[in-house]
Amino acid sequence: MRELAISLNTEASEPLYEQIYSYIKHDIQKGQLLPGERLPSSRSLSASLEVSRSTVELAYEQLISEGYLESVPWKGYYVCRIEGLYSLDTGCRPVRSRQEKEQVPWKYDLTPNGIDLEHFPYDVWRKLTRNVLLDDRKELFQQGDPRGEWELREAISRYLHQARGVICRPEQVILGAGNDYLLMLLAAILGRKHLVAMESPTYKHAYRVFEQLGFLLTAVPVDSRGMQVDMLAASGADIAYVMPSHQYPLGIVMPIKRRLELLKWASEKQGRYLIEDDYDSEFRYKGKPIPALQGADRDDRVIYIGTFSKSIAPAIRISYLVLPDSLLAQAEEALCRFSSTVSRIDQMVLNHFIRDGYYERHLNRMRRIYGRKHDIFLERLKELSGIIKITGENAGVHLLAEFRNGVSEKEAIARAEEQKIRVYPLSEYRTETAEGQKCKAAVLLGYATLTEQELSEAADLLIRAWGTAKT
Amino acid sequence: MRELAISLNTEASEPLYEQIYSYIKHDIQKGQLLPGERLPSSRSLSASLEVSRSTVELAYEQLISEGYLESVPWKGYYVCRIEGLYSLDTGCRPVRSRQEKEQVPWKYDLTPNGIDLEHFPYDVWRKLTRNVLLDDRKELFQQGDPRGEWELREAISRYLHQARGVICRPEQVILGAGNDYLLMLLAAILGRKHLVAMESPTYKHAYRVFEQLGFLLTAVPVDSRGMQVDMLAASGADIAYVMPSHQYPLGIVMPIKRRLELLKWASEKQGRYLIEDDYDSEFRYKGKPIPALQGADRDDRVIYIGTFSKSIAPAIRISYLVLPDSLLAQAEEALCRFSSTVSRIDQMVLNHFIRDGYYERHLNRMRRIYGRKHDIFLERLKELSGIIKITGENAGVHLLAEFRNGVSEKEAIARAEEQKIRVYPLSEYRTETAEGQKCKAAVLLGYATLTEQELSEAADLLIRAWGTAKT
Repeated sequence: MRELAISLNTEASEPLYEQIYSYIKHDIQKGQLLPGERLPSSRSLSASLEVSRSTVELAYEQLISEGYLESVPWKGYYVCRIEGLYSLDTGCRPVRSRQEKEQVPWKYDLTPNGIDLEHFPYDVWRKLTRNVLLDDRKELFQQGDPRGEWELREAISRYLHQARGVICRPEQVILGAGNDYLLMLLAAILGRKHLVAMESPTYKHAYRVFEQLGFLLTAVPVDSRGMQVDMLAASGADIAYVMPSHQYPLGIVMPIKRRLELLKWASEKQGRYLIEDDYDSEFRYKGKPIPALQGADRDDRVIYIGTFSKSIAPAIRISYLVLPDSLLAQAEEALCRFSSTVSRIDQMVLNHFIRDGYYERHLNRMRRIYGRKHDIFLERLKELSGIIKITGENAGVHLLAEFRNGVSEKEAIARAEEQKIRVYPLSEYRTETAEGQKCKAAVLLGYATLTEQELSEAADLLIRAWGTAKT
Repeated sequence: MRELAISLNTEASEPLYEQIYSYIKHDIQKGQLLPGERLPSSRSLSASLEVSRSTVELAYEQLISEGYLESVPWKGYYVCRIEGLYSLDTGCRPVRSRQEKEQVPWKYDLTPNGIDLEHFPYDVWRKLTRNVLLDDRKELFQQGDPRGEWELREAISRYLHQARGVICRPEQVILGAGNDYLLMLLAAILGRKHLVAMESPTYKHAYRVFEQLGFLLTAVPVDSRGMQVDMLAASGADIAYVMPSHQYPLGIVMPIKRRLELLKWASEKQGRYLIEDDYDSEFRYKGKPIPALQGADRDDRVIYIGTFSKSIAPAIRISYLVLPDSLLAQAEEALCRFSSTVSRIDQMVLNHFIRDGYYERHLNRMRRIYGRKHDIFLERLKELSGIIKITGENAGVHLLAEFRNGVSEKEAIARAEEQKIRVYPLSEYRTETAEGQKCKAAVLLGYATLTEQELSEAADLLIRAWGTAKT
């Protein structure tokens, strides 16, 4: 049995039992106390250290819990035999400092993915959040329905019916923290043995998520009306992912004829589905919003997916699926395996934002703001009308500029870059499976994040960049 | 060309152009206007309806956008040929009313999954939320880092180092909306071609999520020290999912020897990993918390996963992964495909909760509260000491009661049910792959959600239920 010469510091903030525990543990780790060695009894150690016996016992018990000591009844405490122990050290790996962000040299970034946050109703959001938290509402901190709170799903289904022509009941609505997560859920509901047809070009982010989830993917070319149904049929796909109200990135509005052809394709074979991504359909600056494809579906074939990232803010991580009735049973089975990914507090704030009319007001306001930006930008770009052809206007938050003068996409981007304007190549939206397809020379011009004044200046710089292009 | 007898209501809230649009769309859908039919010119229709020409043009443009009309230059507007159109109707499917929740007949529910929300620091949470929202901080509403906000990841890595002995840098920390989502991310990082060994019995929820994600699974029996490493090695698994600090549901603390054996197993072959689920290690009522396995890992083999669901509240949807350096490059590649699932506002609230010391205070308080509940419940249950053997004590929020008198699990549950006490069968935690293994007759008794008084009463009822059991 070994004497333990532990020097205790009675003035340290570390409790005495912890000091004893640390000392012994350290000695075991360093091989100063060897496997099988017996430790002093708690009585003798407490006497030698002049501490209470329960202090020593606490230290011993902790060491037993962690497996450093074992207690042999009627005999005493022994050091355990622990293979590989001596490789342990207590050093902390160095903490790397945060990496500096890349310096962006752009004067104006015409990102098609941004939104205008200058006009976000901060006051309302604060007020609603305060109200939701006002009482000590225990239930808000408890686990909620994996599909999301009923009240919010009801508010969303009403909004969708009224604003988007979506026909659904709250039972069909499932909330999740962003589209990525909802696509993961969809993979759980549908299984992964599917060939998913995406429009080409398409929303690359969704493409990558599908790929990541283990789906097989194929790209189906679009014409001026959207996905070509004969090519979809020939592709062998059983799921088609489409953006009928405002195709991303092309801005195509799918006419009713093509929509019905798509729905017909889906209804022709058991297990076919259309995923309708209605990502920014709230914003249309001419006439009424184009109703959702889902509203025309009579055969229970459309899976509708929408988000508040564009219409409220990207950091509000709430998106929703509207499932057809035919998938509800499967969804129930899959969902019982998952917990909701959206905090209930956030759900209740959004619920009030919609129910109290703030959402509608916000949308109307943003439509006006984006509409004005759209008009100003488009008007200024008219000076380039011989050089670029603008499409995808009157909706969303970006335009597509196609070069009609033989300038390549790369050159157009380089020239814009010289003026410190960032524009986005259309070719980036091609999927790997569509590599062979030819792509027109075009760039995306987003106008959401800039002010009217900035847009006017950005247009001037683009005119400078492209106006002198060879013809 | 057809005359359109549209009766406009100038007093309706619906704008005039919408009334014209709806009328024509309806007529086309009903077959009253036939494909190829020409519509009146905007000039003549505006004259006959006594509205401005631009009103009619707006209606026509909307109908063109949606694909009901086409405009033939120099000729006029024609109804499109739309196959399958007549099946459309505008009726709304009936809205089913919300289903009534099942009436729970329990007097006391000893769920092992609940937490005590009576002592949640509502005031602090409100205050921090208010502070975070105080200024119009645009950046909080913009898309954030897919891995989570740096500040919070830094706060978590510091906390983990200090409280759990986890050795990590903020770069290794990834935040997500709940463990399910993080396991999905992990599937994206690791790929799915893995055989995952789970402890048997285990946390069934994680088992189901793995299964859903397409992993192959196997169950490895535990002895009194946790997962049996020789059986793990024999299983052929390359990933082992373990809960070393407080195994769920058995409450086993894995001793250092077994931990090092596990780490050795992992280091013996390229690509092996241990997933350490440290779900409720904050709560230990005797001595210090047991340090995490991750802190003893010298070969970069431990993937650590933790959550605030137990330590703060289930509805705070924030969990975290700590990845070994060896997986950081893969993680970066996978994560660029996903957006963060946690709202930035929520992240900042939690960041302040941790940094301003509230989290530590809350944990200390909850440890005291749970500790008292634990002691009272355990003390009262001593009366049953001839009948049940309690294990898994001194940590977490549940006890395991094993029947030593030959009473079956089913009978024990039925007897508790007679007293309107809900207890949870251990057999439920067995996985499908472990069906053959024998399971002791035992139940889980959670004590988090009940008050001290209620626990005392619940214990009385259990004594009444089980005390008279045959011996």
